[in-house]
Amino acid sequence: MIFSHQNAVPQKPQAPIARAVYQPHRWREECGVFGVWAPGRNVADLCYLGLFALQHRGQESAGISVTNGFHIDTVKGMGLLTDVFRSGRPVLDGHAAVGHVRYSTHGGSIHVNIQPIFANGAHGFVGLAHNGNLTNAEVVKQNMLREGYLFQTTTDSEIMLNLIAGSGAPDVETKIGESLKQVAGAFSLVLLTADSLIGVRDPKGYRPLCLGRLPGSPDAWVLASESCALDSVRAEFVRDIEAGEIIIINRDGIRSSVYERSENRSGCVFEHIYFARPDSVLDGLSVWESRFRMGRHLAKDFKGQADIVIPVPDTGITAALGFSEESGLPYKEGLIKNRYVGRSFIMPQQISREATVEMKLNPVRFNLAGQRVVLIDDSIVRGTTSARIVSLIRRAGAKEVHMCISSPPITQTCHYGIDTSIRKELIAAVKTVEEIRQTLGVDSLSYLSKTGLLEAVNDPGNLNHCLECFWVKNTDSKTSRAEKLGNHV
Amino acid sequence: MIFSHQNAVPQKPQAPIARAVYQPHRWREECGVFGVWAPGRNVADLCYLGLFALQHRGQESAGISVTNGFHIDTVKGMGLLTDVFRSGRPVLDGHAAVGHVRYSTHGGSIHVNIQPIFANGAHGFVGLAHNGNLTNAEVVKQNMLREGYLFQTTTDSEIMLNLIAGSGAPDVETKIGESLKQVAGAFSLVLLTADSLIGVRDPKGYRPLCLGRLPGSPDAWVLASESCALDSVRAEFVRDIEAGEIIIINRDGIRSSVYERSENRSGCVFEHIYFARPDSVLDGLSVWESRFRMGRHLAKDFKGQADIVIPVPDTGITAALGFSEESGLPYKEGLIKNRYVGRSFIMPQQISREATVEMKLNPVRFNLAGQRVVLIDDSIVRGTTSARIVSLIRRAGAKEVHMCISSPPITQTCHYGIDTSIRKELIAAVKTVEEIRQTLGVDSLSYLSKTGLLEAVNDPGNLNHCLECFWVKNTDSKTSRAEKLGNHV
Amino acid sequence: MIFSHQNAVPQKPQAPIARAVYQPHRWREECGVFGVWAPGRNVADLCYLGLFALQHRGQESAGISVTNGFHIDTVKGMGLLTDVFRSGRPVLDGHAAVGHVRYSTHGGSIHVNIQPIFANGAHGFVGLAHNGNLTNAEVVKQNMLREGYLFQTTTDSEIMLNLIAGSGAPDVETKIGESLKQVAGAFSLVLLTADSLIGVRDPKGYRPLCLGRLPGSPDAWVLASESCALDSVRAEFVRDIEAGEIIIINRDGIRSSVYERSENRSGCVFEHIYFARPDSVLDGLSVWESRFRMGRHLAKDFKGQADIVIPVPDTGITAALGFSEESGLPYKEGLIKNRYVGRSFIMPQQISREATVEMKLNPVRFNLAGQRVVLIDDSIVRGTTSARIVSLIRRAGAKEVHMCISSPPITQTCHYGIDTSIRKELIAAVKTVEEIRQTLGVDSLSYLSKTGLLEAVNDPGNLNHCLECFWVKNTDSKTSRAEKLGNHV
Amino acid sequence: MIFSHQNAVPQKPQAPIARAVYQPHRWREECGVFGVWAPGRNVADLCYLGLFALQHRGQESAGISVTNGFHIDTVKGMGLLTDVFRSGRPVLDGHAAVGHVRYSTHGGSIHVNIQPIFANGAHGFVGLAHNGNLTNAEVVKQNMLREGYLFQTTTDSEIMLNLIAGSGAPDVETKIGESLKQVAGAFSLVLLTADSLIGVRDPKGYRPLCLGRLPGSPDAWVLASESCALDSVRAEFVRDIEAGEIIIINRDGIRSSVYERSENRSGCVFEHIYFARPDSVLDGLSVWESRFRMGRHLAKDFKGQADIVIPVPDTGITAALGFSEESGLPYKEGLIKNRYVGRSFIMPQQISREATVEMKLNPVRFNLAGQRVVLIDDSIVRGTTSARIVSLIRRAGAKEVHMCISSPPITQTCHYGIDTSIRKELIAAVKTVEEIRQTLGVDSLSYLSKTGLLEAVNDPGNLNHCLECFWVKNTDSKTSRAEKLGNHV
Repeated sequence: MIFSHQNAVPQKPQAPIARAVYQPHRWREECGVFGVWAPGRNVADLCYLGLFALQHRGQESAGISVTNGFHIDTVKGMGLLTDVFRSGRPVLDGHAAVGHVRYSTHGGSIHVNIQPIFANGAHGFVGLAHNGNLTNAEVVKQNMLREGYLFQTTTDSEIMLNLIAGSGAPDVETKIGESLKQVAGAFSLVLLTADSLIGVRDPKGYRPLCLGRLPGSPDAWVLASESCALDSVRAEFVRDIEAGEIIIINRDGIRSSVYERSENRSGCVFEHIYFARPDSVLDGLSVWESRFRMGRHLAKDFKGQADIVIPVPDTGITAALGFSEESGLPYKEGLIKNRYVGRSFIMPQQISREATVEMKLNPVRFNLAGQRVVLIDDSIVRGTTSARIVSLIRRAGAKEVHMCISSPPITQTCHYGIDTSIRKELIAAVKTVEEIRQTLGVDSLSYLSKTGLLEAVNDPGNLNHCLECFWVKNTDSKTSRAEKLGNHV
Repeated sequence: MIFSHQNAVPQKPQAPIARAVYQPHRWREECGVFGVWAPGRNVADLCYLGLFALQHRGQESAGISVTNGFHIDTVKGMGLLTDVFRSGRPVLDGHAAVGHVRYSTHGGSIHVNIQPIFANGAHGFVGLAHNGNLTNAEVVKQNMLREGYLFQTTTDSEIMLNLIAGSGAPDVETKIGESLKQVAGAFSLVLLTADSLIGVRDPKGYRPLCLGRLPGSPDAWVLASESCALDSVRAEFVRDIEAGEIIIINRDGIRSSVYERSENRSGCVFEHIYFARPDSVLDGLSVWESRFRMGRHLAKDFKGQADIVIPVPDTGITAALGFSEESGLPYKEGLIKNRYVGRSFIMPQQISREATVEMKLNPVRFNLAGQRVVLIDDSIVRGTTSARIVSLIRRAGAKEVHMCISSPPITQTCHYGIDTSIRKELIAAVKTVEEIRQTLGVDSLSYLSKTGLLEAVNDPGNLNHCLECFWVKNTDSKTSRAEKLGNHV
Repeated sequence: MIFSHQNAVPQKPQAPIARAVYQPHRWREECGVFGVWAPGRNVADLCYLGLFALQHRGQESAGISVTNGFHIDTVKGMGLLTDVFRSGRPVLDGHAAVGHVRYSTHGGSIHVNIQPIFANGAHGFVGLAHNGNLTNAEVVKQNMLREGYLFQTTTDSEIMLNLIAGSGAPDVETKIGESLKQVAGAFSLVLLTADSLIGVRDPKGYRPLCLGRLPGSPDAWVLASESCALDSVRAEFVRDIEAGEIIIINRDGIRSSVYERSENRSGCVFEHIYFARPDSVLDGLSVWESRFRMGRHLAKDFKGQADIVIPVPDTGITAALGFSEESGLPYKEGLIKNRYVGRSFIMPQQISREATVEMKLNPVRFNLAGQRVVLIDDSIVRGTTSARIVSLIRRAGAKEVHMCISSPPITQTCHYGIDTSIRKELIAAVKTVEEIRQTLGVDSLSYLSKTGLLEAVNDPGNLNHCLECFWVKNTDSKTSRAEKLGNHV
Repeated sequence: MIFSHQNAVPQKPQAPIARAVYQPHRWREECGVFGVWAPGRNVADLCYLGLFALQHRGQESAGISVTNGFHIDTVKGMGLLTDVFRSGRPVLDGHAAVGHVRYSTHGGSIHVNIQPIFANGAHGFVGLAHNGNLTNAEVVKQNMLREGYLFQTTTDSEIMLNLIAGSGAPDVETKIGESLKQVAGAFSLVLLTADSLIGVRDPKGYRPLCLGRLPGSPDAWVLASESCALDSVRAEFVRDIEAGEIIIINRDGIRSSVYERSENRSGCVFEHIYFARPDSVLDGLSVWESRFRMGRHLAKDFKGQADIVIPVPDTGITAALGFSEESGLPYKEGLIKNRYVGRSFIMPQQISREATVEMKLNPVRFNLAGQRVVLIDDSIVRGTTSARIVSLIRRAGAKEVHMCISSPPITQTCHYGIDTSIRKELIAAVKTVEEIRQTLGVDSLSYLSKTGLLEAVNDPGNLNHCLECFWVKNTDSKTSRAEKLGNHV
């Protein structure tokens, strides 16, 4: 296991300024959190099953903490759930557990911040699992350092952990509320204390979090990033945690409070475009349905002539079905995905980098030869993979390739991410749509409009979602919600 | 690494009779083979890439042998390709290689027979990778034992290896031809000798094998179980190896001969139903196309009323698309497959066995609630998984479930398999269709007719495929091809 | 990797009291620390080599932290050095490093507290590796909790880390001195800050720590638990760190100060009896020499008749040589140790527990048969292993077995250990010497006298060593140093 | 697992000649074998315990085969016993087992020939574990190839396996005797058949093999390379297997026969010098005793003046004790061996190669400073390690270093080894003793005389031991036994 720590505040004025070693290779980070309160049940195993349904949200590391009120036992490590827990889950016979999976940042030799994390203070212990990123982490951390807080990781999650664990407020709602009012950004949290399981969502509701009830026990509850994880433990979906809400589950039952109300929501629209599983329902909206509608909107706006519509599997499938239904073009499988591609695959160095796409995707010539193809994908980041896929389809005999993307052009890195230096790698940040079309080598290229996207996610007035990664200076200057959100810039 | 050997011939009359320890848990075995002749290229890496595209044909073990004419180096082991070759592929700088992946027999602690295997005899060395099963293995082996042959494994593959390596015939065609005329059953082989790469297919052509040409070099060739593996090394498909054909590739070029002609072919029809990847073309027929047609035939015969058609992913997808096109019913995703389910997943013991289906499949309630659903799957073996899937769909709100299977009822274990004791576990061997329908809890159950299946695979006269696993005593007695094939019983 | 945390301060009065899960199975804990300051050299590799020479001080876990003044990178994990660093050491190109090995607590499934540990505060970062145990940890920790400190581990090392990292004192000497004045017990520390490598030893000097200089560079320094680790990096021994001394090494050179003076020293005498390597020199005294003298003293007091003297390898060897020289009895090898016994050895359950000694030790019958044997061992803890060794020697033909122990009877658990519940397992705490003799089945049993021990370690007046584990109520009541040390009881 | 095979007989005249890839890095190979017949006992675990005591004879690979008369189950792999059997031993409930450990050939990436090996023929199965090397392997193998035998490994062990398994002789004595009469060289074998455990030793008795009886069962027997392995399973030593003897153990009891008598024995004298454990008794002679005598002979011939005698641990210890007793010089520990050095240790590349000795050995300055030291080692192969040890001792302050070697100069590679190309690396093959002395940097260098060696091993007339590795052309020409042994050249 490898940890990397940084020196945030140099010891002397002349000492060097600390810089983060951590180099994210994704334009955005994602995680999955899960919590379970089930006295008398095997909470570690339930947590394992729940996290397994959230594995798509994070493959870099995984961890589970279990408490019996006296102790908190944690097993965590790098890798997939099946790797981390091969040699066992926490053995503590507890009544509550929280778990976490973290997204892969491939290529880096420095790995930080495996969750859940834990702190023991004068007011008891707190274990925490966090999905999201703070936008004012450095400012808050500097203040905390001045107040005497110490940090053992480089995560912004530890900021929230220390604020909460260090709070002397008389009740847990105040403790959490006052702590979290100091931070800005995205956070869906599940927390363990000696006597409670707690779920919290930030006041904008950037990241999803929902509540379920386990069958058989009236007071057995589950918290999960996505509803699909409730299904995997056969829990009944109760409702989404609201933005700014704190849910506290303990022996006295379940209680709710709102520590901060926000006029608008800012649910990450990329959950619907790409992150979440299509079998999940987020904030009342089926991910499958929203993706299907994205496809329909793409079809409505598509002006070209084509014979078939095919997805880039797996994330393009649902939108392609919507496109097919709206357009009447037959939906076909044009690319088959190798199900064994994973993080452990080591590419032979002698094989050119282009082969990476062939390892993952293979054309169905029967469907492609001589056809005018509409190709559906969820988004274009750098464009290199897309170009290789288009080349693959052309070599398989496609006569024309019309690419339709079920999201607007990504022009901005996520304000809730760590590092914005990657912005120049975003193809839509530096090229026009026509230039991108030429780079990809397609006959036409269509992006979903923001209007279409908002209608697809049932939010035509843009009251509930964050679209900042699609922000374009000229066109959006008047209506940009980003400008209203001072803490985002 | 664990080997298990058996004593086939007891040393003395009073010595105990040998019995096989090996307990297959699948009703049929499958493997993938790959060979490459490419002087000057990294043949080990090409073989690795090719096998990676065939990983679906075998997850239990993997191996690659490379030769430079003087030596043959082999790396092999238990597990997925990425596990076995994590610490490296053969380092020999050779001109030819063969590789093998073997199907999982889950549950058994005894693992045998990792391929490729190798023998060195008076006439040089032979390395061999085999897909298929012999039907007269015991008889031939007893004869060979009497002739003085020794065996170090329990595979029938070693029978062919020893016959070929022990043959003193003047040329390689005779050597192989005379050896293989002694055995009956299914075998697609790739062989390495000091100076040649060789591909052979049995006279009935049970298992697929095809030839491709690597770009850039006029004399660089590839042999593969499925054409999708040619794509992964960017080889151009040349043709299928014919039944009974021997292909010899060496410095003098490529030459072909037929060592035994058979009136009819017996291509395994389950390659099209289930085993092969849909992006492969086998014996001139696109697997995607044949599966699509199976779905169309199912739709033609379907008499019920329904709202949507959904597949059991992944193998039911293509047939469901065919059903949708023929029936006009919309194709929907009703079940999402967890992409992280694999052989390394260890199920918590505390969770009931029923949860294994929930771990793998999750319903899309949006699509299922209140609907009359046609559910497409490729086959039913024991029926237990199907029953759990149906229960899952019903709990997600489906009003009716009509199950359509893109194959006839499986009533017989494969004659080319190892153990027929499993026959009683085949639900269609012991129950009528109506009884199965009740067991699964579906509103209707339809199987694809043999006629429909044969039309789907472009073989209406049943001249080229083996349908023995669907054989039923009464109805098939007149037309059974099995009865004509003496060595099958 | 498995962490276990406890809740030290319950959240509410009625909340359950925290109890430690951690169950030590050794009567005393030991660790090894190493630090290196060597700009321009590979400090991670030097640290690795140094720790390798200290591996005998801890086999449970290992870790190395490297800093370049901006960042601190840590690689740590469970197991031997060769296991933990198999996949690499810290890659940071730094100028200083600290490392730690920790003793095995076999049998427990809960592993805590892998070092080095790290904290980042307002005054910069601190990395810490600690050998020893505090005696007032709970009291200090409760005070710190009340002051708002948070803890992420259950180690007493984190208490010192947080005190130092949280100190706002203007200079590092004050920072460390004021922090450490709050704690009592045993600690030899190596610390990393942004600009310094620091070594500290508690005011009683319980645990060893020495300073060396790397060849070739005037300003490259090494700190190590034992001098043998200096040899392994070819560093020249400079001197021992004094009790209560702080050594600070940075770009300005090396400076020393004493933060607390103590009239007497309390060096752990078991370093000489058992812990340290015989090739080390601790506080000016060769471990080899002191063990040799222990053997001589045993011989002087031995009244029996015998033919040969043999050691229990490896720790009894040097004392047996001393016994031989003093007594004139020939030194022989009577037991051969299997060099492959280690932590990874898994004993077959079917074999009786007695065989564990046979796995480790085998008699040399040639030397034992018919002989009256003096058997030298360093100490007796529970007595079970000793009894099995005696039985082994008798079965090999020894006529008489006279056991001589190069330490006084262990009657007390170490006051600097974590858990005193093990005291009842100490055979000398509950039995007389004659009763122990009978239990072991030896013809005579002699322990080294305290006087002899003190003379062996050049401390006849008992001014410099801690002998508390040999404390006996009646005989020691007048002279016990323990009673003068208020913080020990 | 990695296998490497070679083509021994090219397929065609113009085909390239096969060469062995295998590159031994040791001047001699060693292995350990163990067999157990114990119906009703856990034979796999007994075999594991026995092999553990033989681990010093081979660290490269390990394997155990168990039979119940019907099947033979084998678990084998690369690495130490604890690595190979971490995930379990053979689970077959058998009555007999054989096991094997193989010596490390460090540095090579090609690993071959893990034993036990197995063959099934017309006359039943045979499992075999072999210690030794054949001298006429290539000739016999070519003959066998011509007779139609096939080989799946490159071991000479497989030659014996195939001869025995292929033999149609009516009884097992004839089968084995006739087979082994065809081969020359060194072999101690343990064999498994359906109904027997068999031990065989070659007619010269090069490699040791002994018989023991398990307590508690009248008919439970053990075969082992060294007697120390009998001790580890608490078996009673019965006797050594004689040269040319076949021991057959089965339900009818135990019977013995001699298949070939030889006038003289040729026991490998290096078993006494270096290979065997000092607690073993080989062919009636205690290894400890013979080493002690070697030291005495060295002392008798030593003409220098010195203060102390120290061993190179571990193999020099016993001879140093003998030297001390004979000379009256005190025996001291001058070098301490790091007990954690093993095959898994990865040396930092940045550290110079010279440090490898420092990692392994550390001087005890207290004993060395200012002393005239006699340094005892068992042998000198290349001389590089010896030179580094001498340098280490000098840096620790020794005034003079007199090196005494408890064997004559090694001038020849072992005729029973695989590759003689290494001869030029033997320092005594290319330099005089005076030149070697200068190379090592010692004040004097003495080798044990052949006369002294033969007396030490109780064979003054040289009737029972092989001394060929010490053969020198001029001086030995008259008396060389090598010249009488035609098959050795």
